[in-house]
Amino acid sequence: MAHDIPALKARLAGIRLEDNPALVRQKSRDFYWYSPTLKRQLDDVTGEIVAFPASEDEVLRILEACFALAIPVTPRGAGTGNYGQAMPLAGGLVLDLSGLNEVLEIAPGRVRAQAGAIMADIDAACRASGQELRLHPSTYRTASIGGFVAGGSGGVGSITWGGLRDLGNILRLRLATMEARPRILELEGEALQKVSHAYGTNGVILEVEMPLAPACDWIEAIVGFEDFATAAAYANALGEQDAILKKLVSVIAAPLPQDYFLRHRPYLPDGLHVVLAMLAPVAGAAFADFTARWRGRMLFRSDQLDPDARKGLPPLYELSWNHTTLRALRVDPSITYLQTLYPFPDQLDLVARIHAELGEEVPAHLEFVRFDGKVTCFGLPLVRFTTEERLEEIVARHEATGIPVFNPHRYTLEEGGMKQTDAAQLAFKREADPAGLLNPGKMIAFEHPDFDFGAGRTYLFRGLGGVA
Amino acid sequence: MAHDIPALKARLAGIRLEDNPALVRQKSRDFYWYSPTLKRQLDDVTGEIVAFPASEDEVLRILEACFALAIPVTPRGAGTGNYGQAMPLAGGLVLDLSGLNEVLEIAPGRVRAQAGAIMADIDAACRASGQELRLHPSTYRTASIGGFVAGGSGGVGSITWGGLRDLGNILRLRLATMEARPRILELEGEALQKVSHAYGTNGVILEVEMPLAPACDWIEAIVGFEDFATAAAYANALGEQDAILKKLVSVIAAPLPQDYFLRHRPYLPDGLHVVLAMLAPVAGAAFADFTARWRGRMLFRSDQLDPDARKGLPPLYELSWNHTTLRALRVDPSITYLQTLYPFPDQLDLVARIHAELGEEVPAHLEFVRFDGKVTCFGLPLVRFTTEERLEEIVARHEATGIPVFNPHRYTLEEGGMKQTDAAQLAFKREADPAGLLNPGKMIAFEHPDFDFGAGRTYLFRGLGGVA
Repeated sequence: MAHDIPALKARLAGIRLEDNPALVRQKSRDFYWYSPTLKRQLDDVTGEIVAFPASEDEVLRILEACFALAIPVTPRGAGTGNYGQAMPLAGGLVLDLSGLNEVLEIAPGRVRAQAGAIMADIDAACRASGQELRLHPSTYRTASIGGFVAGGSGGVGSITWGGLRDLGNILRLRLATMEARPRILELEGEALQKVSHAYGTNGVILEVEMPLAPACDWIEAIVGFEDFATAAAYANALGEQDAILKKLVSVIAAPLPQDYFLRHRPYLPDGLHVVLAMLAPVAGAAFADFTARWRGRMLFRSDQLDPDARKGLPPLYELSWNHTTLRALRVDPSITYLQTLYPFPDQLDLVARIHAELGEEVPAHLEFVRFDGKVTCFGLPLVRFTTEERLEEIVARHEATGIPVFNPHRYTLEEGGMKQTDAAQLAFKREADPAGLLNPGKMIAFEHPDFDFGAGRTYLFRGLGGVA
Repeated sequence: MAHDIPALKARLAGIRLEDNPALVRQKSRDFYWYSPTLKRQLDDVTGEIVAFPASEDEVLRILEACFALAIPVTPRGAGTGNYGQAMPLAGGLVLDLSGLNEVLEIAPGRVRAQAGAIMADIDAACRASGQELRLHPSTYRTASIGGFVAGGSGGVGSITWGGLRDLGNILRLRLATMEARPRILELEGEALQKVSHAYGTNGVILEVEMPLAPACDWIEAIVGFEDFATAAAYANALGEQDAILKKLVSVIAAPLPQDYFLRHRPYLPDGLHVVLAMLAPVAGAAFADFTARWRGRMLFRSDQLDPDARKGLPPLYELSWNHTTLRALRVDPSITYLQTLYPFPDQLDLVARIHAELGEEVPAHLEFVRFDGKVTCFGLPLVRFTTEERLEEIVARHEATGIPVFNPHRYTLEEGGMKQTDAAQLAFKREADPAGLLNPGKMIAFEHPDFDFGAGRTYLFRGLGGVA
């Protein structure tokens, strides 16, 4: 990593830079440590300097200077990812975009914001117009919109709107290329596939335009079931209730809620598997009657709670998606997790089979979503970790059962995703980052075009000691 | 029909009544004449008097008087049904509820209106709050909300929100019973199943509370395909695009659009099968790119049209659902139609099979909807009518192929619907209309408890010459 940082500093006079090692190290991290494998592999990763641009012009100056000096650039939002996606594997400069945080325009059905704007702040700005973002991660209160588009896939809201991969869930991206003279490009429609969920490997996202949904004071509900299979079937059927507008349907197997949802503990009787749901106020009566059909026990309804009792409780979405994992880790640091998909139409059968086989060691956590127009579920099951070898066996057992794993113990796009080359992302990287300076090591198809995804071997970036 | 109409008039002093035979006959009709079978059976049906109540109190006085005199009462909204559902088979009084047309309350996510309020008028009133009804029939500009709930099942909007049968698409009904002392009841949630789509046989709907969606200036689009199967597959896939917010996805096989959509004719090249779609403005770019993926020909986009060209064109939803049939009937009075369901997941295969067998005689018209959480389609195929016997054969061919028919050539709830007793509706009729005076002849389970739905025999109400 013999990068000429002093020369870089000289070129970037007037832009806020930090090279204090402790700070640089902090800004070189995300939540990769949820994975013991990534923790082992990436714990020493750090950049050499962090830049905090305050404007688009400053971003362009930084990119131009880094290109001239062949210094890698790893763009970063709020660092709330879990796949090491914002970690600078080849050192160089960390481009912290949190200063580009303006909400630029709010119109009926859409909002335009700078990449570093925090999602909760965007919603606060949209609230006056009765609108809110369709989708957000459980890290809503800290995550940036640019980071969500670059490294997320969906989350809260996906039970109604599907995922970021669906045409129409991102309207437009404005981004800068990594070239001698960085260009600014605007993409919309089909072209967005090139750069969304590319970890910032093929462009620096400057601005995002997103569709909006009507804002709601969502009812938060927790429903309990004695039987896990019934909880999962109820959640699936609730997802399929077209007239009950909802934003979240999660299933968490006992004893996870009782062990890890400490603030909500008084509402969670021992032994019950729970379904978390966020519902539009207008759906309140229909939801109660639907739940009665299934003999679900209504354990918690935010709209029927004493206001004092509600104080001190986190929002329900902070028990869901990867916040479930976070709450478990706070109690038991040995916990880790997987990300899986139970494909339609076999989702309930697949859930039952893997839960019967591994439910003690890999307790179930399901997130119901719309996926290609059908309701099905992702899994973020917890794993009672013993060894990396056993973790790999657990992944293999899922895949052998017909449950794809988006492996959160891998730092590359391909291994954490569909395990194949994304031709559109690759072609665009060749165009927008010809020198391979943007977030190196994350796109195998670019770093190692001959890599055999079918061979079952884990990719190791040369910067981390690999020989690729 | 020896009803004591003079005594009734005496009891109803001060309430607007009409017994001019031409007017009574007009108010005893709906669009039953779309069916040659119903036209033959029901053409002579007429009430003896029409009442036009101006208030809930007047409705109660009318019901009390009719009960005392054993005079049948057939409630009526705007008379836009097609199953003869508002036709007084046993004579008596027609209760025209069009005078109860106030929009009573608009709140976030909900509207409360009197039963006779016209749906387009409700939306006009809701517009200031940025909201509109989730669902409406193609008769939106003339149909009443009470009639829609009593005799409709869904329509425009069902591709996003499902149907009226889904918990949450009706919030509350206020209705009057038919007893010596009529009671007023309020139903919500699960209990709504008793009286929605019951043709007013078990209560007189006075008020309706409905959920609202965000109002949109919907983009109207027409997409053309050379191949019918591709048009159907594209429409299905568009329905499954979770991020493209839409209100209508219809498929109409050539040459129907060219022959019957006269005002839109300049946009409809010969030979093309068309897909009609209504899309949220925010989805415009995604929709165009999605259509390009399918190589669909964009024939018409209302948002890209010269404003002058748009004048004189009916709204797109008035080419869809049963307005397709109406436009055909205006050109060719011998046309009739069916209502069918192509059950998920075999919908495209079933459509292809029946279209291959009967497509010339029964040209295809599909309406895509969400149904139990999945995208599938209803059919309202046109029928080039020859004889009633052949029409029955066509119905039988559909059913033998696995395509349920909601037979629009039958005037009873059961035969036009699921061909079985609805126990909840029946039980509620016994409670709310013990003398059987509300809309007699429409609920077989009440009129003829021993009727064998499996025997394949058509029910004939005694008032129409049957011996039941």
